Amino acid sequence: MRVRRRKGAKEHLENNPRYVILKPEEVKGHWQEVFGNDHPIHIEVGSGKGRFITGMAAKNPQINYIGIDIQVSVLSHALDKVLDSQLPNVKLMLADGSSLMHYFADGEIDLLYLNFSDPWPKKRHEKRRLTYKSFLDTYKKILPEKGEIHFKTDNRELFEYSLASFSQYGMILEQVWLDLHASDYENNVMTEYEEKFSQKGQVIYRVEARF
Amino acid sequence: MRVRRRKGAKEHLENNPRYVILKPEEVKGHWQEVFGNDHPIHIEVGSGKGRFITGMAAKNPQINYIGIDIQVSVLSHALDKVLDSQLPNVKLMLADGSSLMHYFADGEIDLLYLNFSDPWPKKRHEKRRLTYKSFLDTYKKILPEKGEIHFKTDNRELFEYSLASFSQYGMILEQVWLDLHASDYENNVMTEYEEKFSQKGQVIYRVEARF
Repeated sequence: MRVRRRKGAKEHLENNPRYVILKPEEVKGHWQEVFGNDHPIHIEVGSGKGRFITGMAAKNPQINYIGIDIQVSVLSHALDKVLDSQLPNVKLMLADGSSLMHYFADGEIDLLYLNFSDPWPKKRHEKRRLTYKSFLDTYKKILPEKGEIHFKTDNRELFEYSLASFSQYGMILEQVWLDLHASDYENNVMTEYEEKFSQKGQVIYRVEARF
Repeated sequence: MRVRRRKGAKEHLENNPRYVILKPEEVKGHWQEVFGNDHPIHIEVGSGKGRFITGMAAKNPQINYIGIDIQVSVLSHALDKVLDSQLPNVKLMLADGSSLMHYFADGEIDLLYLNFSDPWPKKRHEKRRLTYKSFLDTYKKILPEKGEIHFKTDNRELFEYSLASFSQYGMILEQVWLDLHASDYENNVMTEYEEKFSQKGQVIYRVEARF
């Protein structure tokens, strides 16, 4: 997600250590202490403006959520939502999807969400796609055995690529949706982007895949 | 494919043993002799009126094709096309997809096509879908190690089901197309059904999956 650079975004994050984990490397292996309970931990890699992660946290109080984004300005918008919600079960952190093993111990994360990830359509940028095999290596490490990735996108090429990438990595596709909003799937929490583009008639794809 | 019952269809097949293999169980393990060469053999399970199989045979003279359908009337229409084409590399046979191991030796078939298979949308009819695991057992037996299935359909639910079914069987998705006609795939040979429904704006899905 590209957003305008936001003045004071960095300070905004730093001023809210209750919600923004500023030194995630220091809590590696101890995330349950951050939340103060032993509930499962679900993360969203590329959490954008945070609507999905706060919506999920509101809906599922028995699960802890961490929204992760690489951009300071984007994360600061997500922080606004988290501050509004005052939910105890959602945290944010600034990180790159490829560095997650520095912040989470093996198997510490119970489920990983990818929503409307940057498609990086050029073949030479394949390695930047969040469903490229090197990212799957990282996700596999921090998820439990048979851990799951739940991925949705409106980008046809990225979805085609990702189904093949998951499969060729040895992952199993548990379920596939080729028009999520036309299906009977009931637990959908929309992202900002999803609401905007599905209203324009864009099909939303979704898959649940496990290692 | 449902077609009107055609009078004389059975006799039409019986009168053309050059193109219709009437007792396929007798040539099990000896299909290369039927074709008189050692070219690879590709089959289409559910060949309908035969446009795909004759189109493929015309396009690829170095490959032998067998169109298989369960319905006498349907196969008799395919025979008309084969007779028109006079191609040496296409044969037809009447058989059920679940009985293929009686007609082909292990690994005798090089590639298997499924095109616009009956979706059997009701959950209680799942076992009749040509991508159900018991059919995959049969296909696996007659294909070589890492043998491939190439499947296309316009039925969203059947495609969703089939991707998961292939994956859960342990097959690998080599490539997925979520809008075949909008892609740069160049080797497509359309079926009758495909031409009709894609003209109405229906998206065509395709996958190449291997054991």
